[in-house]
Amino acid sequence: MPVYLNATDAGFEAEFTALLGAKREESADVDDAVAAIIADVRARGDAAVIELTARFDRLELTPETLRFSREEVDALIAEVPAHEREALQIAADRIRAYHERQLPEDVSWTDEAGATLGWRWTPVSAAGLYVPGGLASYPSSVLMNAIPAKVAGVERLAITVPTPDGQANPLVLLAARLSGVDEVYRVGGAQAIAALAYGTETIAPVDKITGPGNAFVAAAKRRVFGRVGIDMIAGPSEILVIADRDNNPDWIALDMLSQAEHDESAQSILITDDPAMAKAVEAAIDRHLQTLERRKIAGASWRDFGAIITVPDMDTAAELSNRIAPEHLELCVSDAEALAKKITHAGAIFLGAWTPEAIGDYVGGPNHVLPTARSARFSSGLSVMDFVKRTTMARMTPAALRAIGPVAETLATSESLEAHGLSVTARLNHLNEQ
Amino acid sequence: MPVYLNATDAGFEAEFTALLGAKREESADVDDAVAAIIADVRARGDAAVIELTARFDRLELTPETLRFSREEVDALIAEVPAHEREALQIAADRIRAYHERQLPEDVSWTDEAGATLGWRWTPVSAAGLYVPGGLASYPSSVLMNAIPAKVAGVERLAITVPTPDGQANPLVLLAARLSGVDEVYRVGGAQAIAALAYGTETIAPVDKITGPGNAFVAAAKRRVFGRVGIDMIAGPSEILVIADRDNNPDWIALDMLSQAEHDESAQSILITDDPAMAKAVEAAIDRHLQTLERRKIAGASWRDFGAIITVPDMDTAAELSNRIAPEHLELCVSDAEALAKKITHAGAIFLGAWTPEAIGDYVGGPNHVLPTARSARFSSGLSVMDFVKRTTMARMTPAALRAIGPVAETLATSESLEAHGLSVTARLNHLNEQ
Repeated sequence: MPVYLNATDAGFEAEFTALLGAKREESADVDDAVAAIIADVRARGDAAVIELTARFDRLELTPETLRFSREEVDALIAEVPAHEREALQIAADRIRAYHERQLPEDVSWTDEAGATLGWRWTPVSAAGLYVPGGLASYPSSVLMNAIPAKVAGVERLAITVPTPDGQANPLVLLAARLSGVDEVYRVGGAQAIAALAYGTETIAPVDKITGPGNAFVAAAKRRVFGRVGIDMIAGPSEILVIADRDNNPDWIALDMLSQAEHDESAQSILITDDPAMAKAVEAAIDRHLQTLERRKIAGASWRDFGAIITVPDMDTAAELSNRIAPEHLELCVSDAEALAKKITHAGAIFLGAWTPEAIGDYVGGPNHVLPTARSARFSSGLSVMDFVKRTTMARMTPAALRAIGPVAETLATSESLEAHGLSVTARLNHLNEQ
Repeated sequence: MPVYLNATDAGFEAEFTALLGAKREESADVDDAVAAIIADVRARGDAAVIELTARFDRLELTPETLRFSREEVDALIAEVPAHEREALQIAADRIRAYHERQLPEDVSWTDEAGATLGWRWTPVSAAGLYVPGGLASYPSSVLMNAIPAKVAGVERLAITVPTPDGQANPLVLLAARLSGVDEVYRVGGAQAIAALAYGTETIAPVDKITGPGNAFVAAAKRRVFGRVGIDMIAGPSEILVIADRDNNPDWIALDMLSQAEHDESAQSILITDDPAMAKAVEAAIDRHLQTLERRKIAGASWRDFGAIITVPDMDTAAELSNRIAPEHLELCVSDAEALAKKITHAGAIFLGAWTPEAIGDYVGGPNHVLPTARSARFSSGLSVMDFVKRTTMARMTPAALRAIGPVAETLATSESLEAHGLSVTARLNHLNEQ
């Protein structure tokens, strides 16, 4: 049974705080194993990667077969039925169109002192994208990671994807092709992250690594952070639906289950001001859980982490939502825009009952890589910005230096940084001598 | 003696690679100690913070004296001489003016399918800024961290600064006041980071922590990352100066020493196409190292990590610079803008001989918190963007869902995520029944 809370109950605050603090994922203690794998790949390069792939993926590779050849990719892609190819293409086009609007602009201006200031954006040169194998090998995630990188102007984009027993997912390779990925390696786990971060004879190192993965991949990303950039360490997925009485409870139920079916650790929460809607959604969820293909996963998620919260009004709903800081937030209410204005922390907002979260997973345009576990309080979903960096620019004229240089001299003295001050003084002296 | 390289020498590539890979900082293994401190603060709150402050800072506090009172701050600030106050105010104003231009805009549009898409920016609610005590207690760093946070709209901004033996730096408190900081706590080390991340009875938790610190602080930030957001883990500072023959070698020498005087691990590199300039700068550095207040620190940095590289032309200089990906880059060449166009990785660029890096440290306007240790390949300096986050927005109309919903249905089926597909199908069925 999911948790059932009423915001006007006496014990609500304690129960809600417990819900917020509940740990949904035990992080397996794989750090020592991961450290050893990274050290091995750094020391022995391809040889280590090949050995680890034989051990974990039961696949014998050589330096020549670590990477998919163009012909292999062509052959696998040819297997994809036309309707799936077309769907992926439309999704890719829409995702690209959305992300192209994120490209930041260079800025430059000259201020009253005569200083020319600004900044400039440049792309990361090389990025690596980790794609999980098996159950969680999602072509949509390839699009969501690779397209922002290519839109940003990343020159070299490499994918690593484990192919246990040699089984490759043709849709993943098609998504890579549609996104403009340059290299695909059949390597997974911590060894893939190590190879991307440090390079091997065959796999050149990258500057930034993104993409989801299991506990080994997450631990490896944490370890190579600093050597390369990484995206967030994603936790289990979550959805919060805020719904008023004018909704089809079946739609809401399916939206919540589409989160729950991802993972037994996923979390689906409904907040409503209508107790009858709460009951109706719960009943619809129970009904779908009889037949859903992934009912075992979705059922466990709903039973262990699901929650229904009734509130006296939508202001309370917004307030609770901001404390949850949900990854996905559906606003199925009459004036979704007005309610959205009160939302201060959320990864993605889906406005109105015609916008199921699944649209955002595939084809809406916005990225589906979003901050989980309340991290929307301080972080954003994946975007073009993750693949560019800012260089600040400054140019002083003699007049500008004369105007603001003395401030630097004073503060350098305050901070006992003599050479800092002298580097300004030497120039000002020259101006005064002229 | 610094390293002396010539880009046209046979052994150059190996020597340059060694220079790039040289480790300038041994990270002290403090992780176990830090883990214990964090656990203690989580378990015992104020009591732990007070005990640790007594042990490390020789300062007896109570929950009431953990935080500076307004009267204490007023009294300390009153000590600051007028010319320093004025300099800090000018610096604060210029830094604010620069960062106000970084505020990102919300975007929204409706596409051909009828979907309304976009994103919205909101500030982090509460941020904590760590300020080191002792030698590295820089008021300029308070401005550089606090002003972007306040420009972003951070409602609650707390500072922690250790005050060993009760010694507070009045300029740090003045910088905090000028930046609009709300709370200042006399706590340092890992215990300060733990208190900011998890909260105590007296110190409310924050969502994001920024600011420099020693090995304990860095290890603590790494550990609380995920619970809260953090800025980069900064390494020792570095400067690269690219200079042609038309320069005053004394100015270049002082610019390089202003980096070297920060820290024995700091690095100053000169690249020039003029061997005579190389010699002249080296001589000027040696001369200043006779008298500089911090000659011990600057001398060690220059001796252990300094480098002078002669190149045949400025294209080679740009190429080497991009491999170094310097934190600070001075372009003291006749056409600095042209050379800047060839720079792909750098934290901050200072154009022309009238722009000493020290201007950027204090009063230029751009932030002085910049990516070190080659991380400008994939990351940017501190900015307003570090204190805001993006929420993506999507609204479908019935027509939009009809247009793109089938793509989501197809891809959901491909990924075996039935509920995802059904959440779209249920709505499309309803439309078809109408």
